[in-house]
Amino acid sequence: MLIAEPLQKAIDELSKLPSIGKKTAQRLALHLLKSDLSNVEALVQSLTELKSKIRFCSSCFNLSVDEKCDICNSTKRDRSILCVVEEASDIIAIERTNEFNGLYHVLGGVLNPLANVGVDSLHIKELITRIDEKEIKEVILALNPDAEGDATSLYLIKLLKEYPLKISRIARGLPIGGDLEFADAATIGRAFIGRISL
Amino acid sequence: MLIAEPLQKAIDELSKLPSIGKKTAQRLALHLLKSDLSNVEALVQSLTELKSKIRFCSSCFNLSVDEKCDICNSTKRDRSILCVVEEASDIIAIERTNEFNGLYHVLGGVLNPLANVGVDSLHIKELITRIDEKEIKEVILALNPDAEGDATSLYLIKLLKEYPLKISRIARGLPIGGDLEFADAATIGRAFIGRISL
Repeated sequence: MLIAEPLQKAIDELSKLPSIGKKTAQRLALHLLKSDLSNVEALVQSLTELKSKIRFCSSCFNLSVDEKCDICNSTKRDRSILCVVEEASDIIAIERTNEFNGLYHVLGGVLNPLANVGVDSLHIKELITRIDEKEIKEVILALNPDAEGDATSLYLIKLLKEYPLKISRIARGLPIGGDLEFADAATIGRAFIGRISL
Repeated sequence: MLIAEPLQKAIDELSKLPSIGKKTAQRLALHLLKSDLSNVEALVQSLTELKSKIRFCSSCFNLSVDEKCDICNSTKRDRSILCVVEEASDIIAIERTNEFNGLYHVLGGVLNPLANVGVDSLHIKELITRIDEKEIKEVILALNPDAEGDATSLYLIKLLKEYPLKISRIARGLPIGGDLEFADAATIGRAFIGRISL
């Protein structure tokens, strides 16, 4: 036996994680083996609590410790604007910008017939229920700028057109700090289509 | 609060691991959050057992489940040859080659005065004890080809010269599949010094 069995098992489990290959998993496992027991216990506890303590917000499906997430519970947020995102991780990214002060709605994915993700697999029904409550005046679609994200946006636009809402989609164009020379044709094309008159 | 506290904690703990930055840690934590509970439990258990079940072989300081490691316990190994390595992970790398059938001795590091690693911090005393038992006829030094590894090798050579032993050091030269054009000068120089007459 090349590697002691508990070490091999830890390597196997670690290499199941995304972007962690066999070699990285081995390095991580050997690092943990050399670390103090308290460090490993802290990691193990944090992973256990990650699964046991976090659930989905009953209103927007953001990650939450309580029944409703901090954003839905906050009294400082504009409850008339709703930003629709694919995943809870997108909320983290948007919150970092400090550009949005409304509420969110996490779809839990995008329409993808090839992966068997249809309308019923996403939290679209719950989105409509929230809009039916009439507090929401504006919906911003912030799905990923790819084929599935675009298809889902188009579907939602069609659906939401029935309601007296302002609907918008976040802009596509050159990323800040990006280089026109190295940007792909689709991005430059979008930047031209979405040009703003000054 | 941007990120739910248990998630933030898991991200913090994961990002303490080597080669895992904040962004990777967040991706890993979100992946685990989406995974089945059984997957996370398997990972957590493997990490717990990693620390609780693995100890160091009392003879060679290799990683082991029992008091002596599988290599020291094996009846198929040549007990007259000893290969000295820095870390237990080096044994895994050497065993993969199938070129060595002797026993190992893990130093647990290399001499490094700047990091306060002296002779007493390494398993050098235990190495001498094993050699005193007179079963060993040959010692192969397989430390890393860097400044500390070289210094430690030189120290060990001086120490082992007192004993009736065949002492050798693994060869340095161009790595297999390497390109002479892109090899560094030190490596090419070593390859010339270590040339083998045909």
